[in-house]
Amino acid sequence: MKLAVFDDYRVGLVEGDRIHDVTAALPPWLAELPAQRMNWLIAHWSEAAPALAAARREAAARPLAEVALLPPSPSPSHVFAAPANYRKHIGELGDRSVTGKGRSAREQGFFLKAPGSLSGAGAGILLPRGSSRRFDHESELAVIVGRGGRDIPREKAFEHVFGYACLVDATMRIEKGVAEEERSMRKSFETFTPLGPWLVTADEVADPQALDNRLWVNGELKQQANTRDMIVGVAELIELISSVLPLRPGDVIATGTPEGVGPFAAGDTVRIAIEGVGDMTLPVAERDRQSPRAY
Amino acid sequence: MKLAVFDDYRVGLVEGDRIHDVTAALPPWLAELPAQRMNWLIAHWSEAAPALAAARREAAARPLAEVALLPPSPSPSHVFAAPANYRKHIGELGDRSVTGKGRSAREQGFFLKAPGSLSGAGAGILLPRGSSRRFDHESELAVIVGRGGRDIPREKAFEHVFGYACLVDATMRIEKGVAEEERSMRKSFETFTPLGPWLVTADEVADPQALDNRLWVNGELKQQANTRDMIVGVAELIELISSVLPLRPGDVIATGTPEGVGPFAAGDTVRIAIEGVGDMTLPVAERDRQSPRAY
Repeated sequence: MKLAVFDDYRVGLVEGDRIHDVTAALPPWLAELPAQRMNWLIAHWSEAAPALAAARREAAARPLAEVALLPPSPSPSHVFAAPANYRKHIGELGDRSVTGKGRSAREQGFFLKAPGSLSGAGAGILLPRGSSRRFDHESELAVIVGRGGRDIPREKAFEHVFGYACLVDATMRIEKGVAEEERSMRKSFETFTPLGPWLVTADEVADPQALDNRLWVNGELKQQANTRDMIVGVAELIELISSVLPLRPGDVIATGTPEGVGPFAAGDTVRIAIEGVGDMTLPVAERDRQSPRAY
Repeated sequence: MKLAVFDDYRVGLVEGDRIHDVTAALPPWLAELPAQRMNWLIAHWSEAAPALAAARREAAARPLAEVALLPPSPSPSHVFAAPANYRKHIGELGDRSVTGKGRSAREQGFFLKAPGSLSGAGAGILLPRGSSRRFDHESELAVIVGRGGRDIPREKAFEHVFGYACLVDATMRIEKGVAEEERSMRKSFETFTPLGPWLVTADEVADPQALDNRLWVNGELKQQANTRDMIVGVAELIELISSVLPLRPGDVIATGTPEGVGPFAAGDTVRIAIEGVGDMTLPVAERDRQSPRAY
């Protein structure tokens, strides 16, 4: 099942190039807090799924191209992210990540991105106006958490996965000795976490550790890897994060990026595709507004 | 006005050593998402405040000691945090912060803590079981965001402040060359962000840049400063963060800590007091459960 959030946080099922609006299956009081619909749906999935199927039969389909896709988990409590997390070549780097400070992905653990940096497939990436900084793309498989929990052993981790989506982790690069902002800030500009185009429920992804992960800039392939080459796999990431704090339904885990991280700029087009999950194309532009503080 | 969240996310007004339960003033559908009550109340303050006052007149008061205080903003979208952000002595260090890597607080910007690390005055700080790592306290004034917004200039920043609370930023220290986890992870263990004991609305804090900020461990004063010695003040922090992404009602901003950061361990008692805001005492213990991954 492909679940999407669109327009004013409506919930839809995507089938081919059409979307069925199933918002009517959700409790009406959620119209008061529409950004919470998806958190509620994920937390109440077993009771809500039959109503969703019934609403699907009633719902008229609209062309997908007519709606504005939002992030399929638009208001998670957390966006966790693994640092660079792919072996360049198996055996060559071993457990060392392809970038970073000589620390392995396992040692570094996770960092946080702001939920306010999420954007959907219907929007692009907006760079700070007038910036001379370098901005990089990172192509990642996102995990959407289903059942929450603390202290989840890796053997039971997949019981807590609701689905998967494509995620671009956009980053403002550090300038050594000039500007060395905190990592979680450099990655949290509004629109710096495109997520989508929808989420594919876990039952439709036979093996999340066997998916091609690719990213293009202006049609040129820049990142290409398979999730089997992750250093810290999905199950171990869930064990790691839940050893620190409780996972909550709707939480997003960005599972890290392979080699090929590189720059993009206003006017470029970034495309990400994760096998069996989705494909989205994102225009990059400069914001039309100058912030009080420049970057 | 002192607003508190207690028991199962009920909302109360604190007067002296008593609390008035005013939950009945909130829309009944919020009982379906009680952790969202405070976000809703803050976002709808001008319409909700009269109902709150009416409910206060009806509500029977209970002794504060009888309730379990939760964080006064229990489910923010974000917990932003400034790095060490106080001048040691005015003029001596200038804009350099008292700790860090030679970067000033202004250069570093902000980092993120997980909302799932928040805990209330009714709970203590829980350390990972069996850890030999060092854990440090940081004593901070927290700002609770009222009206959200993007690109807020510092001159208008206080229009976006709903209130203030005490915040302890607990941290697992890095071990150079041994364990160098990401900062946002080391600070995001469950219970590592005690917030409370309540929030004091902004109208009752004449000057947030003139408050004593003190922290004791086992009765011994460890940190003592005045918020006038912040390097990046509250208004500039709001300008900084909102230049990166939109602030949302209920967001928490930890404004950084003065000198005197030091260790605490299981069995200790940490007390924080911010002048005119509140005072809370937090027992430190080891978790009674071993996580699959040890720290």
